[in-house]
Amino acid sequence: MCNLNTLLSSQTKQIVNLMRHKGILSKFIFVTLFFIGCSVQLLAQSNESGQISSILQVQQYDRAIHIMAMLLIGFGFLMVFVKKYGRSALTATFLLVSILLPVYLSIKTLGIFESRGEIEQFILAEFGAASLLIAAGAILGRIKIFQYIILGLLFIPFYILNELIVVEDYFHVIGKVADTGGSIVIHAFGALFGIAAAVSLTTKKDMETPIQSDATTDKYSILGSMVLWIFWPSFCSALVPVEAIPHTVVNVFLALCGSTLATYIASVAIRGKVSIADIANAALAGGVAIGATCDFATHGQAMIIGAIAGTISTIGFAKLQDKQQKFHQIIDTCGVSNLHGIPGIFGGLAAIVVVEGLDISAQLKGIAFTVALAVVAGLFTGKVVSLFGRPKEIYNDFAEFQDVE
Amino acid sequence: MCNLNTLLSSQTKQIVNLMRHKGILSKFIFVTLFFIGCSVQLLAQSNESGQISSILQVQQYDRAIHIMAMLLIGFGFLMVFVKKYGRSALTATFLLVSILLPVYLSIKTLGIFESRGEIEQFILAEFGAASLLIAAGAILGRIKIFQYIILGLLFIPFYILNELIVVEDYFHVIGKVADTGGSIVIHAFGALFGIAAAVSLTTKKDMETPIQSDATTDKYSILGSMVLWIFWPSFCSALVPVEAIPHTVVNVFLALCGSTLATYIASVAIRGKVSIADIANAALAGGVAIGATCDFATHGQAMIIGAIAGTISTIGFAKLQDKQQKFHQIIDTCGVSNLHGIPGIFGGLAAIVVVEGLDISAQLKGIAFTVALAVVAGLFTGKVVSLFGRPKEIYNDFAEFQDVE
Amino acid sequence: MCNLNTLLSSQTKQIVNLMRHKGILSKFIFVTLFFIGCSVQLLAQSNESGQISSILQVQQYDRAIHIMAMLLIGFGFLMVFVKKYGRSALTATFLLVSILLPVYLSIKTLGIFESRGEIEQFILAEFGAASLLIAAGAILGRIKIFQYIILGLLFIPFYILNELIVVEDYFHVIGKVADTGGSIVIHAFGALFGIAAAVSLTTKKDMETPIQSDATTDKYSILGSMVLWIFWPSFCSALVPVEAIPHTVVNVFLALCGSTLATYIASVAIRGKVSIADIANAALAGGVAIGATCDFATHGQAMIIGAIAGTISTIGFAKLQDKQQKFHQIIDTCGVSNLHGIPGIFGGLAAIVVVEGLDISAQLKGIAFTVALAVVAGLFTGKVVSLFGRPKEIYNDFAEFQDVE
Repeated sequence: MCNLNTLLSSQTKQIVNLMRHKGILSKFIFVTLFFIGCSVQLLAQSNESGQISSILQVQQYDRAIHIMAMLLIGFGFLMVFVKKYGRSALTATFLLVSILLPVYLSIKTLGIFESRGEIEQFILAEFGAASLLIAAGAILGRIKIFQYIILGLLFIPFYILNELIVVEDYFHVIGKVADTGGSIVIHAFGALFGIAAAVSLTTKKDMETPIQSDATTDKYSILGSMVLWIFWPSFCSALVPVEAIPHTVVNVFLALCGSTLATYIASVAIRGKVSIADIANAALAGGVAIGATCDFATHGQAMIIGAIAGTISTIGFAKLQDKQQKFHQIIDTCGVSNLHGIPGIFGGLAAIVVVEGLDISAQLKGIAFTVALAVVAGLFTGKVVSLFGRPKEIYNDFAEFQDVE
Repeated sequence: MCNLNTLLSSQTKQIVNLMRHKGILSKFIFVTLFFIGCSVQLLAQSNESGQISSILQVQQYDRAIHIMAMLLIGFGFLMVFVKKYGRSALTATFLLVSILLPVYLSIKTLGIFESRGEIEQFILAEFGAASLLIAAGAILGRIKIFQYIILGLLFIPFYILNELIVVEDYFHVIGKVADTGGSIVIHAFGALFGIAAAVSLTTKKDMETPIQSDATTDKYSILGSMVLWIFWPSFCSALVPVEAIPHTVVNVFLALCGSTLATYIASVAIRGKVSIADIANAALAGGVAIGATCDFATHGQAMIIGAIAGTISTIGFAKLQDKQQKFHQIIDTCGVSNLHGIPGIFGGLAAIVVVEGLDISAQLKGIAFTVALAVVAGLFTGKVVSLFGRPKEIYNDFAEFQDVE
Repeated sequence: MCNLNTLLSSQTKQIVNLMRHKGILSKFIFVTLFFIGCSVQLLAQSNESGQISSILQVQQYDRAIHIMAMLLIGFGFLMVFVKKYGRSALTATFLLVSILLPVYLSIKTLGIFESRGEIEQFILAEFGAASLLIAAGAILGRIKIFQYIILGLLFIPFYILNELIVVEDYFHVIGKVADTGGSIVIHAFGALFGIAAAVSLTTKKDMETPIQSDATTDKYSILGSMVLWIFWPSFCSALVPVEAIPHTVVNVFLALCGSTLATYIASVAIRGKVSIADIANAALAGGVAIGATCDFATHGQAMIIGAIAGTISTIGFAKLQDKQQKFHQIIDTCGVSNLHGIPGIFGGLAAIVVVEGLDISAQLKGIAFTVALAVVAGLFTGKVVSLFGRPKEIYNDFAEFQDVE
């Protein structure tokens, strides 16, 4: 990373310094925005035709709406728990979604990508937004608001590259990976990218600043968590063929039931009392882990995968954050490693047991490549974002928002 | 009840005492969970085939998602009004849903039940979860968190028995009952079960502990109420044939408009001022009452049924809770008798006027059986749950949650 | 307006005085309610037949549910920002929706209107409710709760008249107007009606009473805003033919992305810091403006329309409210002119550039007629509503709600 640092320092810092002045930065972003607006071409129309095809696309759209509720209300309110940082968390959520969707869709109109229906393309963009929001969760509170936009712009090409190589197997180096609901390419990728970016971004001063969680906002966190829970089956089944949807969605619900029960039991067993943060977070680990196998698992397997994921995730939140609190919590504000990272990789590995006829080598290569790319890309992105400066006071709305008490 | 008490005291108390120690209890629940996981078989596939059948199932799934929003956000946040008990109420909601769905689905895979599509079966499980949440609303705040799981486990067989006898008329003793949206078998059953359980559970000390409602959480209650209002038509029309859905859903919306307007008028007329608790609760009574006739009533009838139900419910909240406040409020924390009990039975009786060619005898027998079973089962369940001990401090998160101010 | 004033003063004031006594007023409203209930006839059935037609209607119903979430949670919680007025804002939202839907549907069963499917008719009613809620946003906090019902009753005939003339071109005086998502007839109409009503209603004393916004409720406002954002595509595509839905909904999402990014940039550029109120409001201006062209615009055009609308709206909130603060804020509590009025008219005009083969004369006549009718109707309605008295203390729940601290 040292070479990279030197390289970037010499070349980029000067440009960045110029742009730091608000006027220029605003114009730069505005021009970017305008460019995006112009470059978003009419997306490729679906090849299928007829009324049934339209009906199926509208059914996909209903799931796209469910996913959008997860992105804004789900992820947004789950991140409100950092004291004095609620406005920034919600604004960042809005901006990350708003920058990713058009830029992702623009890039996907380039010739090299497979032509798809508009809604299918849009759902793929939403998947990218979910992964980006997970990544942002790791560094939440330690960058300025406009840096979230830069984070998003840098995240997109790496995410699409991983999608191209692991999901679409564009270069025929991986093989067929089981990951319908994105345990690997959405959750684990986002979490590892975010943690790696956090490592690049974190200074000594950060390490000494404790994150205060806000007891009065825990109901908002639960609201965010419930929205994610409710709509998770639509996330996993968004692009599944219509015949496979009933089995898939029941699987996802059962995995979530399993992780919710396991989270309660593990939280009491480890801590002695229930932690509402465990309930809000680890209860969702079943959704993360079932992603890779949601359309293959039996209902019983789904519930067991969920229960194991909930247990692992709760152990992560309860044990790791106790022991290595200083290091761990500072690096990973929202604990995305516990909720998305480890359960995501566990889900990807569970496919080896669950999916009949799985290409095990491809599955392992897919996981390994995703992990490697996410870490490298995250380290790079964190370094670049850090060049745009740091907020004077971290974890605080004060510097950037009006009317803050 | 004395015999029952003696019987249970001698046999069960010892087992319970053994299990009370956290270690054993946790393991017990974990093993139960594992057993459930393994026993959830692949649910029966729908008999219909082809793409249209799949499309119809996915449309049912959209309604299943709406119902899930009602269960978690709707019921959960409507119960947040008890001061200092918000975390417990939301955690209990999560656990009740997570225990009921897999256990209900497991039992329904036993040979004696009719084979159904996966989504249809899942929606029936959600109906059961709604009824259980209503029951839990009556005793909210007076049991420990893990006792909600025991409450759920005991509730399920009774609920399924009532479903078998009244809805499916398995033993041919009742006849055909009009109750599409569950006024009788979901709302009245849950409310009466909960109140009966509360009678078994309530001690003298409880009677002396006033429930403090939390003025700062009333916006959360309204949020829960609005989520229930918005998605109620999907609850009532969840399993209605596709052709009948438009008429059914408009009926449910009109019934809700009727009860909302009537609640405002009745609240001002009785109290002199509006009570936000009336608005949050009684405004929903139209949804409860229209359940029995939602697919038969004309739009005008639907609105009138809603207006009457809203008026009755508001009188219940405003008058009964004033006069018999001590007894009534202690027994029924959330006032489920006023919102689900009386409006549910009223809805069941309204079918006699509204539904042409109704088997009136069957309708009355269905209501009577449901009431009787709910009361007996509730008394029994309350007694068993009480054997597992009581929280040291009722209506308070403190004993069981970390980081409570 | 003087003549109108005199006329109404002499004739209406006496009736109103009689009715002001609570008993009589309650009965009056109850009788109205009963009348509405009875007059809502079985709505006309759809002419199409067969299972596909039913499936399409159920898909419309899913969008109707999304719109209902916008009406209650979206508009309701967006209006919670006025300090000490949260209960009134949420109760008013409930009542406005509950009075408009049945009355609108009753009127539409009269012979002169085109026969439509039940869900289509219901969605048109929801459109009316959206417009009414926008109008109410302008005068929020300056009328008594029951006056919102009167406001609703007076709004409906004018709204239907505008719909008849501009949307259905019943008298063949306008021509074909492009306004699929209601930029003109829903948003601009509602905003101008509300502001005109506010002018009639506002007294000198009002001008001297500052509106205090409540910093602790800003998360509720963002929740309302996010619900509107998420479901806006369903609003615009609610009655669009099934084949056109994919393109339409992606356009709406891109317009919202554009306005969200532009709002952030404009807010920082104008104010120096971000205002969370700008984010909650102006980020939605893209949805308002894209309404007129949502099914015609290319994706690039949609994003540009959204970005311009977000910029204009933020300038409105940031500049106008600074300069003319006293006049502007008092007249327009929620700033509906900035969010719905100006962006709505901008959207209507944007169609001239975007829609090929547009009848420009019709488009301009449609906008002009809508503006003129909304202003006249609003002035009249405000005057009538003012005859029913004024609250003793404005912007305060205290006078009408129990248990207010």
